[in-house]
Amino acid sequence: MPRVTAEYLAARRGHILSAAAARFARDGFHRTSMQDVIDEAGLSPGAVYRYFRSKDEIIIAISLEAIGSVERVVQEALREHRSVPDLVVGLPAAITGLDDADDRMRLAVQAWGEVLRNRDLADRMAGELARLESALRDRVEMGRRDGDVAEEVDADAVAHVLLAVVQGFILQRAWNPHLSAEAYGRAARDVVAGQLAR
Amino acid sequence: MPRVTAEYLAARRGHILSAAAARFARDGFHRTSMQDVIDEAGLSPGAVYRYFRSKDEIIIAISLEAIGSVERVVQEALREHRSVPDLVVGLPAAITGLDDADDRMRLAVQAWGEVLRNRDLADRMAGELARLESALRDRVEMGRRDGDVAEEVDADAVAHVLLAVVQGFILQRAWNPHLSAEAYGRAARDVVAGQLAR
Repeated sequence: MPRVTAEYLAARRGHILSAAAARFARDGFHRTSMQDVIDEAGLSPGAVYRYFRSKDEIIIAISLEAIGSVERVVQEALREHRSVPDLVVGLPAAITGLDDADDRMRLAVQAWGEVLRNRDLADRMAGELARLESALRDRVEMGRRDGDVAEEVDADAVAHVLLAVVQGFILQRAWNPHLSAEAYGRAARDVVAGQLAR
Repeated sequence: MPRVTAEYLAARRGHILSAAAARFARDGFHRTSMQDVIDEAGLSPGAVYRYFRSKDEIIIAISLEAIGSVERVVQEALREHRSVPDLVVGLPAAITGLDDADDRMRLAVQAWGEVLRNRDLADRMAGELARLESALRDRVEMGRRDGDVAEEVDADAVAHVLLAVVQGFILQRAWNPHLSAEAYGRAARDVVAGQLAR
């Protein structure tokens, strides 16, 4: 038995998430059982259940990871006082840079539908999204103080629009893996920089 | 038996779509059968099957309706040479103005997941979305000629970002029916007008 270190546990957890994402993405969340995930991961049931008690726990973990990686980019932009266009340019690549990103984006889209019917999933997703929206609002409010954001904008509604730019990317990329994160990021930067309204 | 006019057929078709949207939104697309839709509509099986042969046909019809209503707003903005900020301000309300809009948005989010595993649905959705994206690209290219859009923007990628603003609204509103279409539309207008990058 390998020595159980924090890295080993994290790696094994990541391995299970990747196997699950691949299987869910291929066969659909509803048509996949925990046994299918266990088979895909090539582990014993005990090894998988040690990390995740249900498919819902797996879909939550994958969704939270994606939200977390976007939030890190926003927090970094906040710390560095980066402009809003320079913030949004990097958001799509923050998603596509995740391990097995395309499988996970396909799964995220399925998770969005699950959230509509699963109160526990909805609550946990809402909690994580609230943190991301709050970071986006903080950036808008910082801009109001610094003068690069107009006084009259609705920080809350603007945070929703910026979040939509990321969510729409995830959806479109799940449908079309050829969509370029770089071209999309640059276009988002140009839109926010007012290049469509001169 | 009522006289069969075009309006009667359209009204009955709309009634079936609303009943289906309500049932799918409540119980989930996978957990609802055609018989459930027939029961919800209060019609005979023959009356329902005359319009829709399967649940997939219903989910396609509802998705295409939503895309079509957004496309109409874009086409109108093109005809009237409206600015891009003035175009996006009205997009969320074009969606919430549909009959039973909230049920339909919840269903649209479920349809997005179905599209990932159903080639026929994917092809039809892609065809309809391509028309909408092309209308958005036309607006960007018109702006380049008129001078209100920067020469160097990537019209194709920008069309994806503008589409994302609508898709993200549908997703967030499906999760939270209290999200205001008006506040979101104004925020989208402000973002596109460059109010976050002065």
